[in-house]
Amino acid sequence: MKKTIALLPGDGIGKEVVDVTVEILKAVAEHFNHQFQFNYGLIGGTAIDQKGNPLPQETIEICKQSDAIILGAVGGPKWDQNPVELRPERGLLALRKELDLFANLRPITTFESLLDSSPLKREYVNGVDFVIVRELTGGLYFGKPSERVVKDGEDAVVDTLFYKRKEIERILVTAFEIAGKRRKHVTSVDKANVLESSRVWREVAEEVAARYPEVTLEHMLVDNAAMQLIRSPRQFDVIVTENMFGDILSDEASMITGSLGMLSSASLSSTGLHLYEPIHGSAPDIAGKNQANPIATILSAAMMLRQSFGMEEEAKAIEKAVDNVLNSGARTADLANDEKAISTTQMAEEIKNAI
Amino acid sequence: MKKTIALLPGDGIGKEVVDVTVEILKAVAEHFNHQFQFNYGLIGGTAIDQKGNPLPQETIEICKQSDAIILGAVGGPKWDQNPVELRPERGLLALRKELDLFANLRPITTFESLLDSSPLKREYVNGVDFVIVRELTGGLYFGKPSERVVKDGEDAVVDTLFYKRKEIERILVTAFEIAGKRRKHVTSVDKANVLESSRVWREVAEEVAARYPEVTLEHMLVDNAAMQLIRSPRQFDVIVTENMFGDILSDEASMITGSLGMLSSASLSSTGLHLYEPIHGSAPDIAGKNQANPIATILSAAMMLRQSFGMEEEAKAIEKAVDNVLNSGARTADLANDEKAISTTQMAEEIKNAI
Ligand SMILES: CC(C)[C@H](C(=O)O)[C@@H](O)C(=O)O
Ligand SMILES: CC(C)[C@H](C(=O)O)[C@@H](O)C(=O)O
Repeated sequence: MKKTIALLPGDGIGKEVVDVTVEILKAVAEHFNHQFQFNYGLIGGTAIDQKGNPLPQETIEICKQSDAIILGAVGGPKWDQNPVELRPERGLLALRKELDLFANLRPITTFESLLDSSPLKREYVNGVDFVIVRELTGGLYFGKPSERVVKDGEDAVVDTLFYKRKEIERILVTAFEIAGKRRKHVTSVDKANVLESSRVWREVAEEVAARYPEVTLEHMLVDNAAMQLIRSPRQFDVIVTENMFGDILSDEASMITGSLGMLSSASLSSTGLHLYEPIHGSAPDIAGKNQANPIATILSAAMMLRQSFGMEEEAKAIEKAVDNVLNSGARTADLANDEKAISTTQMAEEIKNAI
Repeated sequence: MKKTIALLPGDGIGKEVVDVTVEILKAVAEHFNHQFQFNYGLIGGTAIDQKGNPLPQETIEICKQSDAIILGAVGGPKWDQNPVELRPERGLLALRKELDLFANLRPITTFESLLDSSPLKREYVNGVDFVIVRELTGGLYFGKPSERVVKDGEDAVVDTLFYKRKEIERILVTAFEIAGKRRKHVTSVDKANVLESSRVWREVAEEVAARYPEVTLEHMLVDNAAMQLIRSPRQFDVIVTENMFGDILSDEASMITGSLGMLSSASLSSTGLHLYEPIHGSAPDIAGKNQANPIATILSAAMMLRQSFGMEEEAKAIEKAVDNVLNSGARTADLANDEKAISTTQMAEEIKNAI
């Protein structure tokens, strides 16, 4: 197959982890006889520096001409004092909106060989395997007004949590579709005892559930979900929730496995052009030092092969290679306990050789 | 001293835990030569059943005539299908607003004797000691509009995150005051990379911090905070945040110690009339069975003695008694591992005797 992949390395360690992931993808292409073309685009702080815009129009074009997108990470202290519109994360938010990347999928699974690096006890973590489906283009992130106002003569500020019913429906459909291929259990997280949007969310969830009789729907309040993720994470199969709740809960959930550097994500769009990225940030403190763990990005590439290109075997080959390399004891600095830490490029090299 | 205490047992185990707490308070009164008068009020489901209103006017009056309020818990499956305005938690929300209970304080501390009941490893949990200061009368909880709307001809829904600058200021002042008496570190949690309200929050935090030069202010994004609570909870001294973030993070934090049944809270008002309650819910599954852990409510009463009545010695006497009883191995069902579980009343009895 011939595929075009947009690469948006972004800032900090983004470049390093994307670079080595490209090497892995080249190896896969060779081994399985595919042709991957890579097109680089600027985003985030790097784009601000070079183009004065965290998401240049050019980058959008590059994405639209591709079959899938791999993103590194955006952000860094260099741009922290910038005005809002010139902050790296605005590039990411704008890209989500521009490409209608409405469904963020974050699988949370444990790696047998890394179980002990979790802050949680082994008996809580062992066997955890769920997916968080986060709505990504609505809610408080994009609602208007979002501005300073004067109310009763006093300074005040307002943000708006806005959803169209259809936006709620499509993210729930995504969750039920995924659950249908898994253990058939959806936990819909809301705050229906306080928010009207959550009450609509609950109604729509019930409607969608009726179309998937083989999938069980459970409602859970967001505060309780924040507890349950720690108390018994194994209970979850698919968690679906709105944008802000998803932002908080998915980062909380990333701690369960104790290996942030291992977690990948996909952001699915309505158009079929999806984006894949590690969930970790740009880690400015170790940027340029060849120390970053590239596995999250490499596994994101595997997600891309499976989800966007239908290359199941190829995806498995990468995942298997990662497993083998970890089992052999190879560790980047973030994972190393007693083992000697290897570099970003060494880790990628080992994974490449294992394919 | 002579003090009037409003008691709002509410639903489920609320009655049981408040009943035994009254016994403890009577023992304290006798021992330290005080006079406590107790006035009972209805709230939540029980109030709906008896008065058709989750917060009868009578209850508000009883509270206003008292020096402090102790609440049990509200809610239960019996009222889950009720229309919004006839749900038990509306009573609690209305009470917060009515009495301007704007600052919710939740101390998260570990009990040496219970360390092993945490889902987190001992080395993460040992020595954890922080307070979450949650804004309780603003934000998404009370902002208008909160309603279904039609937008571009489509069904939609909106909730509103609204804060007056003064509301943000007073909760930050509360946090800095508390930090000044502790380890002098405030972590202000927001989502300034997305929300305008968070950007105002950050500005106000800086302004308030300038008035407390001895206290260090740190800003943390809410998604990162959700991670840090698990990854290294010992880093925190005082966490301050808006209503919804506080709801989620404080429930997450309650899992750190692994003993939900031990955690108390205070909701402070601008008028000096404060409310104290356990953080656990009404636990309908064990209601009426004399199995509930009363310690969270008993410790809430201790907070009341200290905070509302300035009775430091009396508060310490209760806290010391709880410690001693736990060290002696007494455990209610929620805490028991190998030990034989004792009942609500037995636990209270032991604490009373230890005072
Ligand atoms: C960078 C930030 C705006 C973003 C978000 O809040 O969505 C990030 O936290 C994420 O989860 O991808
Ligand atoms: C019952 C509910 C409305 C309430 C809240 O969300 O504030 C509860 O979760 C709490 O934290 O006290």
